[in-house]
Amino acid sequence: MPSPKTQPARGMRDFLPADVRKREYVINVIKEVYERYGFEPLETPAVENIETLMGKYGEEGNQLIFKILKRGEHEKTGEADLALRYDLTVPLARVVAQYQNELPKFFKRYQIQPVWRADRPARGRFREFYQCDVDVLGSRSMVVEAELIAAAGDALIALGFKDFTIRVNHRQVLIALGDRAGIRRDHIEPALTTIDKIDKIGVEGVEEELRARIGAASASTLIGFFRELQSLSQAAEIAADELTDKAGALNAAILGRLVEFVGNHEGGAGGVDELRTILELSEATSAARRIRLDPSLARGLSYYTGSIIEINVADLAGSLGGGGRYDNLVGMFLGKDVPACGFSLGLERIIVVMTEREMFPAALVSSPADVMITIWNEESVSESIALANELRSKGLRVDVYPEADKLQKQFKYAASRSIPFVAIVGEDERLKGEVAIKDMRNGEQQNVARANAANAVQIRSR
Amino acid sequence: MPSPKTQPARGMRDFLPADVRKREYVINVIKEVYERYGFEPLETPAVENIETLMGKYGEEGNQLIFKILKRGEHEKTGEADLALRYDLTVPLARVVAQYQNELPKFFKRYQIQPVWRADRPARGRFREFYQCDVDVLGSRSMVVEAELIAAAGDALIALGFKDFTIRVNHRQVLIALGDRAGIRRDHIEPALTTIDKIDKIGVEGVEEELRARIGAASASTLIGFFRELQSLSQAAEIAADELTDKAGALNAAILGRLVEFVGNHEGGAGGVDELRTILELSEATSAARRIRLDPSLARGLSYYTGSIIEINVADLAGSLGGGGRYDNLVGMFLGKDVPACGFSLGLERIIVVMTEREMFPAALVSSPADVMITIWNEESVSESIALANELRSKGLRVDVYPEADKLQKQFKYAASRSIPFVAIVGEDERLKGEVAIKDMRNGEQQNVARANAANAVQIRSR
Repeated sequence: MPSPKTQPARGMRDFLPADVRKREYVINVIKEVYERYGFEPLETPAVENIETLMGKYGEEGNQLIFKILKRGEHEKTGEADLALRYDLTVPLARVVAQYQNELPKFFKRYQIQPVWRADRPARGRFREFYQCDVDVLGSRSMVVEAELIAAAGDALIALGFKDFTIRVNHRQVLIALGDRAGIRRDHIEPALTTIDKIDKIGVEGVEEELRARIGAASASTLIGFFRELQSLSQAAEIAADELTDKAGALNAAILGRLVEFVGNHEGGAGGVDELRTILELSEATSAARRIRLDPSLARGLSYYTGSIIEINVADLAGSLGGGGRYDNLVGMFLGKDVPACGFSLGLERIIVVMTEREMFPAALVSSPADVMITIWNEESVSESIALANELRSKGLRVDVYPEADKLQKQFKYAASRSIPFVAIVGEDERLKGEVAIKDMRNGEQQNVARANAANAVQIRSR
Repeated sequence: MPSPKTQPARGMRDFLPADVRKREYVINVIKEVYERYGFEPLETPAVENIETLMGKYGEEGNQLIFKILKRGEHEKTGEADLALRYDLTVPLARVVAQYQNELPKFFKRYQIQPVWRADRPARGRFREFYQCDVDVLGSRSMVVEAELIAAAGDALIALGFKDFTIRVNHRQVLIALGDRAGIRRDHIEPALTTIDKIDKIGVEGVEEELRARIGAASASTLIGFFRELQSLSQAAEIAADELTDKAGALNAAILGRLVEFVGNHEGGAGGVDELRTILELSEATSAARRIRLDPSLARGLSYYTGSIIEINVADLAGSLGGGGRYDNLVGMFLGKDVPACGFSLGLERIIVVMTEREMFPAALVSSPADVMITIWNEESVSESIALANELRSKGLRVDVYPEADKLQKQFKYAASRSIPFVAIVGEDERLKGEVAIKDMRNGEQQNVARANAANAVQIRSR
């Protein structure tokens, strides 16, 4: 039994080789798609000055930030001056403020790095986890939203996802809904949070909670609206994971209903227009049939100012990723606003679903080497290392068994590691300039000229 | 002027796209070489339980550890229960203890991740930096040392380094030198630290410091020995960065002198034997002419028990990397010892030298996209996005200018970003099913059928 002191810290994980290979596979696919969209990589430190992070994520967020003690003589004061980053968006806003003169007018960056949150650990919820972010800074155009949605969607498609849906909404539309329902402005935020639970607790559950929060009249208006949307959805008869032309008609119907309800509300009308544009522009992308206009989508983050986006699959409670527009965040660092919009895919959730659905390529769980070189006896160790050097220089992945154990034991080790070939240089082989190559999959062994050893392994591998 | 609050935390760095591309290039080359040696990837959390780290790096190390405040109600106690990892070796030892039943008998892992030290920041010294570690656990065989040295050397060669030397020594030999010179055991450690400064302050400087530390007699014996080695080296006439057959003869001479001086000292004689074996086994590898037996090499770390290794280039004060054998560290977690040996390349130092020497491939600092698609007018935005979608599906990296600015402004932007091609779909082009492709390098513009647009960009790129 390993002692508790050898476990990783609570809510954190060690990744053994097979895990790392899965994670790297997903990261590389996502990177490759983001590069195809013209995004460039950015990396920021794990540690930020504490004032960079505090006050950006709301009160709940503040409490989840890991804080770092001052060093040296200040340590005993118990004060913290640094903290682990909570997401990749606030560091990005800081970077854009810091390097404004070096960055292009439209800064398109992706960033795939871990973040830390002192959340209560639960299934699929960790205290260290990776975010895969793409953001565009510098433009208010809805081209940005359409491109971000398409990029995130293409990344999922490249990973083999076929059945995800992309829900979109708009912060200003949410506020307009609240205003139209006569909700006090400072009650809108909690009301939105309640509305966001429609998926989890249903229209009835939301109605009950809303009454308590905002009064019966407002609750009834709001719920009336969402009931209408629900009937539209039901009438459309689209399965949760169905990709169909019907989606466009449903989106149009919901948009029409939004126009009526929001009317000429100052921010809301603009928000509805932006949603219409996003739907139109997305028609030409792979996101076309996946987009669902969803006026109940709120997402927690307080810094969103415009579009709100979330990607879901039917068999996962949370989302695979989410994002939106946050035109004011950079202003908190720079003193002047820079329009911004971004999307973040959650690496661990993607891996959870891909593992459950067995979506990883079989070749990923391969052996650590193409061939293992045995050690014949204490005197021939150099011979084995020399052969390893030759085979590696030809591009093979080569393991050398480190000890002059009995040959059978060495074979057994290679088999346990799923290494397909074993190479032996015994006395005979050495004198003849040959190598014995044993195919561990069928037990066949054959001598080849040493110069052809790499070739022999490569040919038999096919 | 950016305000101070937008800077990264002291001693930490933001990596803009061009920096990230350099870092990824180096990391990928190193990874590829380590994979060729049969090493597998491991990742551990940035954050460890504080007791995992404390007491493993000596008193000085303890003070450099970033400690994380307890959360919630415990925060005001000022207590720390977590800490940022200080290196990748102690987490590895913890992992080996934790997963002993899942890991192979010989665990060969590489790990390329950041570590954090609250060091005083200086040129090339940061508080967040990457280590590129390879370690082999489970064998006392010197095959391990030879393979690690060859792997680290091959990684540097693959990066384009030609002139590095690999210094090797042995902990037990160092202790034997101390014993033979009559130094009290508890004075050996500081004496070794002084000897390690030979490169920096010369034999005379070391002699002076040694006298003060261990008395005139011991200092004189020790210095006498190192003077002899110095004459041997001078007689060999090998330039600092010369790769020559003369190195083998010099190593043999130093080995002979070590045998005499160490004699039948219990640990020391075994250490000398192991050094001889390492030299012999390395003959068959690319490290052959680079290895220098250096009995003055000590390296700070207290957990080394056997071989000590360091790689240097002439134009860098510190080392490019170092390592050694630490047979007792896993035992601190597991209760029973597991033999272990490892080597760590320093990413930032490698990048410093490669940048100064201009060793990065020119293609690395390329443009963020193969082609940028302009927006003809507000009505044709969908058209541009559709074209982007087509070109991306053919593997091109495509940027879309997000706004319907004047075409000249869009061209100017593409030029400023070094994007080689710009695609335009104006009224004419749309009606004819064509795309205008402008080569930004010579200003030539040509219309092609839309279906051939990707091809046209690819062909002209060559």
